Amino acid sequence: MKILNPKKVFVQYRDDMRPYEPVMKRRYTITHSDITAELFVFIAEKYADDQITKMRDEVRVAWEESEKGLVLIGSVIVDGIDIKGISSIRNKIFYNEMPTALQALRQGDRFLFMNKPVFDETPVYIHFISNNPKFDKMYNFGKIGDYK
Amino acid sequence: MKILNPKKVFVQYRDDMRPYEPVMKRRYTITHSDITAELFVFIAEKYADDQITKMRDEVRVAWEESEKGLVLIGSVIVDGIDIKGISSIRNKIFYNEMPTALQALRQGDRFLFMNKPVFDETPVYIHFISNNPKFDKMYNFGKIGDYK
Repeated sequence: MKILNPKKVFVQYRDDMRPYEPVMKRRYTITHSDITAELFVFIAEKYADDQITKMRDEVRVAWEESEKGLVLIGSVIVDGIDIKGISSIRNKIFYNEMPTALQALRQGDRFLFMNKPVFDETPVYIHFISNNPKFDKMYNFGKIGDYK
Repeated sequence: MKILNPKKVFVQYRDDMRPYEPVMKRRYTITHSDITAELFVFIAEKYADDQITKMRDEVRVAWEESEKGLVLIGSVIVDGIDIKGISSIRNKIFYNEMPTALQALRQGDRFLFMNKPVFDETPVYIHFISNNPKFDKMYNFGKIGDYK
């Protein structure tokens, strides 16, 4: 895994989100700059739709409660209406860059995880959304603590 | 005072800095993007020298203990070796934009102030550094809580 430089990660807490709480309503929107390689983590009640560009290269992740306990469920849009780019290439980039996005999430919201280390055990599932069944998949990216 | 959009403020905690502590060692480096009007607040033990550009338009602020209690002491470089631009213009821009920089500081580090509201009473002094005695001044910008 390519190790992310923590100096590249910027955070913006929105709404009523604070560093240590609340947990369950946290929604992360992760964006980046191709020019500076900086990553931006928005921690909010709602996804940061105002930060989404035509590139649609954002990653969204939210906490959810499953039968087996807490999970982090996310999504990326591989293809669809108004999405430019070749599905197979977008799919590959999202897959390869996901560890970087997850490191940004873990780094950006690290105070939450440092406060309750058990949260590092939370499994991460990312839904790659595509009209093509070959790409439309839910991937298990391991535990969020793998990305610290 | 021009009201800063909180969605324009990004934070990066460095070193051992956490949202609620430690207080006294906090050093803020505030930078901005002329293109996006975004403000970046680095909260760290050391100033974020890696973020300083040739423009030298950053604002630095630190907590200090004075005889009268806590103060926030900052500085900007109006002119000097390797500083481009006309002193009088840089001086004016720094003076006019200081409320925006201080709002970014108060917004970026708001969890600290929300946790201990008495901190909002802290007076802010900014040293405008210049070789010209006309511009080399220490300004009192009121209380940091005025910028929330």
